Amino acid sequence: MTDRTLGTCYYPEHWPEKIWSEDAHRMAEAGLTWVRIGEFAWSRLEPEPGKLEFDWLDRAIGVLADHGLKIILGTPTATPPRWMLDKHPDMLAFDAEGRPRGFGSRRHYCFSHQGYLTECRRITRLLGERYGRDDRIAAWQTDNEYGCHDTTISYSDAARRAFQDWCAQRYQSPQALNRAWGNVFWSMDYDSFDQIGLPNLTVTEVNPAHALAFRRFSSDQVVLFNRAQTEILRDLTDAPLIHNYMGVVLDFDHFHVGADLDVASWDSYPLGFLMDRTPASDAEKAMFLRQGHPDLQAFHHDLYRAVGRGRLWVMEQQPGPVNWAPHNPAPLPGMARLWAWEAFAHGAETVCYFRWRQAPMAQEQYHAGLLRPDSAPAPALAEARQVADEIAAMPDAETAAADVALIFDYASVWAWEVQPQGQDFSYFGLVFAVYKALRGLGLDIDILPPDADPSGYKLVLAPGLATVPEGLTDQITGTALFGPRSGAKTPEMSIPDGLPPGLPGLDARVAYVETLPQGADRPLARGGTFRTWVEEIEGDTEVLETRSDGAPALLRAGNLHYLAGWPDDAAMTRILRDLCHAAGLSTETLPEGLRSRRTPTHRFWFNYGPAPVEVAGQTLPPAGVTWETL
Amino acid sequence: MTDRTLGTCYYPEHWPEKIWSEDAHRMAEAGLTWVRIGEFAWSRLEPEPGKLEFDWLDRAIGVLADHGLKIILGTPTATPPRWMLDKHPDMLAFDAEGRPRGFGSRRHYCFSHQGYLTECRRITRLLGERYGRDDRIAAWQTDNEYGCHDTTISYSDAARRAFQDWCAQRYQSPQALNRAWGNVFWSMDYDSFDQIGLPNLTVTEVNPAHALAFRRFSSDQVVLFNRAQTEILRDLTDAPLIHNYMGVVLDFDHFHVGADLDVASWDSYPLGFLMDRTPASDAEKAMFLRQGHPDLQAFHHDLYRAVGRGRLWVMEQQPGPVNWAPHNPAPLPGMARLWAWEAFAHGAETVCYFRWRQAPMAQEQYHAGLLRPDSAPAPALAEARQVADEIAAMPDAETAAADVALIFDYASVWAWEVQPQGQDFSYFGLVFAVYKALRGLGLDIDILPPDADPSGYKLVLAPGLATVPEGLTDQITGTALFGPRSGAKTPEMSIPDGLPPGLPGLDARVAYVETLPQGADRPLARGGTFRTWVEEIEGDTEVLETRSDGAPALLRAGNLHYLAGWPDDAAMTRILRDLCHAAGLSTETLPEGLRSRRTPTHRFWFNYGPAPVEVAGQTLPPAGVTWETL
Amino acid sequence: MTDRTLGTCYYPEHWPEKIWSEDAHRMAEAGLTWVRIGEFAWSRLEPEPGKLEFDWLDRAIGVLADHGLKIILGTPTATPPRWMLDKHPDMLAFDAEGRPRGFGSRRHYCFSHQGYLTECRRITRLLGERYGRDDRIAAWQTDNEYGCHDTTISYSDAARRAFQDWCAQRYQSPQALNRAWGNVFWSMDYDSFDQIGLPNLTVTEVNPAHALAFRRFSSDQVVLFNRAQTEILRDLTDAPLIHNYMGVVLDFDHFHVGADLDVASWDSYPLGFLMDRTPASDAEKAMFLRQGHPDLQAFHHDLYRAVGRGRLWVMEQQPGPVNWAPHNPAPLPGMARLWAWEAFAHGAETVCYFRWRQAPMAQEQYHAGLLRPDSAPAPALAEARQVADEIAAMPDAETAAADVALIFDYASVWAWEVQPQGQDFSYFGLVFAVYKALRGLGLDIDILPPDADPSGYKLVLAPGLATVPEGLTDQITGTALFGPRSGAKTPEMSIPDGLPPGLPGLDARVAYVETLPQGADRPLARGGTFRTWVEEIEGDTEVLETRSDGAPALLRAGNLHYLAGWPDDAAMTRILRDLCHAAGLSTETLPEGLRSRRTPTHRFWFNYGPAPVEVAGQTLPPAGVTWETL
Repeated sequence: MTDRTLGTCYYPEHWPEKIWSEDAHRMAEAGLTWVRIGEFAWSRLEPEPGKLEFDWLDRAIGVLADHGLKIILGTPTATPPRWMLDKHPDMLAFDAEGRPRGFGSRRHYCFSHQGYLTECRRITRLLGERYGRDDRIAAWQTDNEYGCHDTTISYSDAARRAFQDWCAQRYQSPQALNRAWGNVFWSMDYDSFDQIGLPNLTVTEVNPAHALAFRRFSSDQVVLFNRAQTEILRDLTDAPLIHNYMGVVLDFDHFHVGADLDVASWDSYPLGFLMDRTPASDAEKAMFLRQGHPDLQAFHHDLYRAVGRGRLWVMEQQPGPVNWAPHNPAPLPGMARLWAWEAFAHGAETVCYFRWRQAPMAQEQYHAGLLRPDSAPAPALAEARQVADEIAAMPDAETAAADVALIFDYASVWAWEVQPQGQDFSYFGLVFAVYKALRGLGLDIDILPPDADPSGYKLVLAPGLATVPEGLTDQITGTALFGPRSGAKTPEMSIPDGLPPGLPGLDARVAYVETLPQGADRPLARGGTFRTWVEEIEGDTEVLETRSDGAPALLRAGNLHYLAGWPDDAAMTRILRDLCHAAGLSTETLPEGLRSRRTPTHRFWFNYGPAPVEVAGQTLPPAGVTWETL
Repeated sequence: MTDRTLGTCYYPEHWPEKIWSEDAHRMAEAGLTWVRIGEFAWSRLEPEPGKLEFDWLDRAIGVLADHGLKIILGTPTATPPRWMLDKHPDMLAFDAEGRPRGFGSRRHYCFSHQGYLTECRRITRLLGERYGRDDRIAAWQTDNEYGCHDTTISYSDAARRAFQDWCAQRYQSPQALNRAWGNVFWSMDYDSFDQIGLPNLTVTEVNPAHALAFRRFSSDQVVLFNRAQTEILRDLTDAPLIHNYMGVVLDFDHFHVGADLDVASWDSYPLGFLMDRTPASDAEKAMFLRQGHPDLQAFHHDLYRAVGRGRLWVMEQQPGPVNWAPHNPAPLPGMARLWAWEAFAHGAETVCYFRWRQAPMAQEQYHAGLLRPDSAPAPALAEARQVADEIAAMPDAETAAADVALIFDYASVWAWEVQPQGQDFSYFGLVFAVYKALRGLGLDIDILPPDADPSGYKLVLAPGLATVPEGLTDQITGTALFGPRSGAKTPEMSIPDGLPPGLPGLDARVAYVETLPQGADRPLARGGTFRTWVEEIEGDTEVLETRSDGAPALLRAGNLHYLAGWPDDAAMTRILRDLCHAAGLSTETLPEGLRSRRTPTHRFWFNYGPAPVEVAGQTLPPAGVTWETL
Repeated sequence: MTDRTLGTCYYPEHWPEKIWSEDAHRMAEAGLTWVRIGEFAWSRLEPEPGKLEFDWLDRAIGVLADHGLKIILGTPTATPPRWMLDKHPDMLAFDAEGRPRGFGSRRHYCFSHQGYLTECRRITRLLGERYGRDDRIAAWQTDNEYGCHDTTISYSDAARRAFQDWCAQRYQSPQALNRAWGNVFWSMDYDSFDQIGLPNLTVTEVNPAHALAFRRFSSDQVVLFNRAQTEILRDLTDAPLIHNYMGVVLDFDHFHVGADLDVASWDSYPLGFLMDRTPASDAEKAMFLRQGHPDLQAFHHDLYRAVGRGRLWVMEQQPGPVNWAPHNPAPLPGMARLWAWEAFAHGAETVCYFRWRQAPMAQEQYHAGLLRPDSAPAPALAEARQVADEIAAMPDAETAAADVALIFDYASVWAWEVQPQGQDFSYFGLVFAVYKALRGLGLDIDILPPDADPSGYKLVLAPGLATVPEGLTDQITGTALFGPRSGAKTPEMSIPDGLPPGLPGLDARVAYVETLPQGADRPLARGGTFRTWVEEIEGDTEVLETRSDGAPALLRAGNLHYLAGWPDDAAMTRILRDLCHAAGLSTETLPEGLRSRRTPTHRFWFNYGPAPVEVAGQTLPPAGVTWETL
């Protein structure tokens, strides 16, 4: 059994040493257990190449540990110092426009640059050797927010050469690559691997197989970069290794990175994410302006719990307004508590608020902390204190097994970004629409990678899964829903022989697809519409539901269902409710903004809505959290 | 007399040789006469520099011809193989941002690159020598879709040097160029031709005379590139030479390219074009989502019939959903037939559906064919078969002479793109608005280049014609309408002495012009408004119609009329109707979406609308076609 | 006492010499006093490097002066000739994308390029030596419209090196710079000044201190560039030195440039500015389409009168439609007169219409003049003639002292552009909203730089003033309003110790700020809302007004007020009206579109609205001007 704990993110190098002790004292007093440090401090750890200054870090660790705090130490590789560029002038990533992404902020490196990778190994080894066996360092974080600021993909020379090697390894011969990609199509055949360029700045659309290969490669480079650090740290420490993922950053395969780590943590900024990356209507954005989308945090908790193979942290939790979204409102009073409890209810072991004290200088001056820049308490401090008291009374961070499994596949993200076929099609949007509907029905959900074993789940959903893994349908013991667009591609991004979806036992073929603009929805006979994406199906499978024009909309063969379009929200809920009932799952209809989550012992209720709601025998105010014993 | 025939586009290099024969058999069975091949096959015809492999093409031609199909052979110059870039690293076009437009799709060449031009001559000669006298090759296509993907204009070094030469030839001295362009304006004088740059990346707006010269030059480069191939093929074959133009690609002068060819063909994608390039309201786009705009195809048929000096083909006809528009719906059942008949009614000799079989790989996987990727028939195959039967009963492809001539001038496209004066002004939009109104009045239209002889037409229209050719008004024997913005420029892009429009006999001068945002229309006394573009006229010419503020809106001197603004659709129809009646032409008011076209023997009716309509004694359903004998 | 005079802008080099005399005659006849020449003529003054041709200019000056016209001679440095680039290939500015901004229009130089600066000194000295003591040259203009076309900021190598020097001078050591900017934040420390790059093309947001320093530097470069010319001219002439500023160009500190000049002039294009740079609602833009915004000209008159330390000209006045805005309507009849009188009422000594004759060639062909291209009078000529008659009867250009002072600070423009915190926050928009409300209350306003002495004013407003100068509040003798966002930053772009606003005697701290999207306004208890920007205040200061949720909205300590958000227009008017009354100022409520301005002797009324309005005992039609004696 794991305890629920709180923490915060602290930058001793930002503050006068004389206030460290008072800070540590107040952290402990606030009920915090963890403090993360070091991840942006390279310029102070190594102010000149090879000149190491770890003394201040030693002292900071000492002060923090003296107050009983457990330390998460970050490798500082997300912020190489300025001198690194003099050593490795070509270490920068290049954007799709062909321009280097320069020094002056952070994450200014290309994952494929071997020289920088060597530097990262070196600093990681130095830190590991010094602190790996130091009990005060109770966890390690690698780098910081891989992929943030669109940094997964680089069009540098280093990336091009590495991609050529990757292609050589995957395809073995240019001829095999030409066949796999169908390069004959427009005389795009290659004679040698070193002719292969990156898929940017072409005259028109590149071959989607080429683009998808580059996306796979780019993800693999993140895996290798992270692994270079974990391989070193594994030998030097027994503390858990963690990375802090971001929200809705989908450019690399988190399951693959996570396989080398012990815990998946993520940085949860509900208000910022609502504004700049959540697939939500304008009405939803207005309603949840100061609460965040009711399902976005839950989705990521479920996703990253899978990435962490059961171990989930929130490494950075928004405590107040942030600085980086198009607009930056303050959370409703209570949200800093609600978000923490939502995380714990989903199995999080630790929630660290970012950051301890708001910085008065540099990029994040308007990013709230638990303290204000003048060291007075910010509103979230009292909420954190309340959570600390509450978890002391209910420390158990166990996770209940869900009945519903939703498959999430990074390669499908890339496939459909490469080839959306209609400008509104988004794999994440589709999966999130399913998730949202399920959660609105009161269900708990496990998110699975496509290669996980789905047996045991009563309901398994795999919308938009570009390639259905061999044998997946055999493993499913419950009811399953595929489609729309599931099984639409071979792993090499072609249309499969025999046409999609190619599900065993389901006599159905997608004759053609249509993408529709807003307002041109295709009505369903039982109400609601297909929007954005519609498939024309032929075959002899049982038709459970049709479009108003009589065309098949929902098909069944045994436990296997196939949905031939993207339903609007109401139709999605109706279809999933019916499917749940068919699968023997009971559903509820939660009021708008109310959400729940069960642990083995409790059912938690969260009111994201702007009005009070009656639940669990009480009136739950906006931003309210409550729980019932199961 | 020419027969009406059908065809398709086929890529033997995409498919196993063993299915070629079955494919050819099914083509013939479907009633197809023509098959186009070869235009993207350079990497298979010449896999290494100088290593030619024509055997497979010989065999493909043999198989197709054995089934009675007539072959159109394309020169493969739109898709140079990857090795070409090793030979000519500087052959790429550059975009306006100064970046090379790289390998990985198609059309990756600069029209001004002499090295690549030499390669194109070489491969054309090789093909011509091998197949020029081969009777199975019944037509030739040069390159593919000049100008598609914005490829007419290149800002490469090769283009810059060629532009300097072009300027030297046109102006003979830098001083003459300075005078012609008015370079004194901002000290922009040149001392030598090699100082002249391309008109991109300047601090603010370039001299419009400079920009227009560059547009003329860019068009001339396409003409020369195409002529390099036709000059070779003329000596080697007697088969007709054709190019397949695109829809609403206006960056080069199709009349000039067409002068070196025998037939003008074009690639007709009604649904894609509706979405991404048709000047239509949102309501029109919603109404015609699955039909295409009722006038866009007709406009291009009329335009390219003029480009082909009477000989018109559709080289690629959309058969189902395409892959490249922002959204890609399926045509209404019947449209693949309707579009073919619309083409035939406008004088097309041949309509080839693109493509025979939908490709499962590479860029156009979601582009429908006559067959699906699994070789089953796609919906359009049966419609093609129906058309084949129908044209067998009515083979005559003759074109009736129209009473109405509409002048279309590519140089005016460029002039008004260079200097729109208001962001909504579009020459194509203006001409299309006139065309649409005329067609809604039940009229047939001939489109003419500005240097054609308009005598004999009862009504001649020249809206927005930047420079009115010397003597044009004398040649007009019928009623004529100029304006708005006709005669507004000298050929060197200046305001003419004496002010526009400068029409002989018409005492009217444009004192100044106004461009208006949406919602700030200027009302007309007789109803409707001028929108976007309004001219203030002075002079003593007869005023037929005024604005509500009393200013002249429509002027007349004898048979010559001048329209001093851009009317909204209703006012345009009213004004043109009156003008038709003055010209002795009778008009009708066609229901929305119904269109007609006459041949010497028949009147055809097309229902593009979403509802049935009564016409020719019958109820014509949506997507319906019918005809009456004249 | 200074006279009110009119003038125009003339380009003798654009026209045949034989018409100069007739032009000059007609100018004098139209009642014009001034004629500006020469500012774009470098290529004709020095057609080859070192080959000077001043004869034509001598003759032009002679002809103009012979007709009694006073000449403003411009230095031609805004349009370096083409040969200048052969001498100084690296003289171009670079845009934020890293691309040189090339030859072919104007303003193609980097302010930091020392070679070009030397050339500018040379041509200025040559002109000064030849014409400095020539009485016919009654004023000088330096360059033309600094900053126009976004030309203040350059990312060239020259700019980078100069910025490094600027940093070295300001901070003396890299360590001091690191501390000032807070570079420790993300390991952004520099070891030497030559490591400092320009703040473009970074991975994510740069350090705002870095960005603000670059903005200050960029402004300083304009000051130095201009000073290079004034230092030379001061020795050679006693005529006043002037620059013609633009409207809403805020990238350099006009007060700093103005300190080296004698008169501030500006180029007033009310219709163009309404379209492309005025913070106005769509409804305002529609209502004032042909009049311009009723407050934008007045704002700039007041601003530039301060920049000119009391001496104000309009160097270019729009006379008819222009060519460069998104849409270009014609002014309502009467506006060319109204705009001139608005300028005179605000203290302008001279209003020059741009330009004398509309050019038939090059970039500004659709830009109206006082004459048409065919030399016939354009509508504005008669209006100018009317103004000339009117000012002959009322020549006094004195300015009344206003009771209200509004502080405008260029550094605050840059600070909030660098770090808006919400995408809709605009310092200019905020200050303009205050100005608009004050003027709608019938008040006259003086605009002050932040370092001016505000004593004597009954009301002083400093909204959004990023850094409140030491001692400013002590100098204020009247009522003062700060906020929102005033005092929010140290000069190095950090949050001040003790939190904003830090106003002496006002016990209030901004605990945090929120930025809100449209539609998420925060209601005020007394009506209206805060929009875009809301601050949460703590402290013990008197609360004059609260938000509906009870939070402080308007605070007071003695004469000092602080506004904790951005009110909507109605609430802004209400709050300012109350403040005026508290300050002993009486207010009116002017009808929409009616504006007034007092001189020591008269009150002027201007009807910008689309309907007649009763004022001063008469019905003032749209575009009407009238005045009462005080």
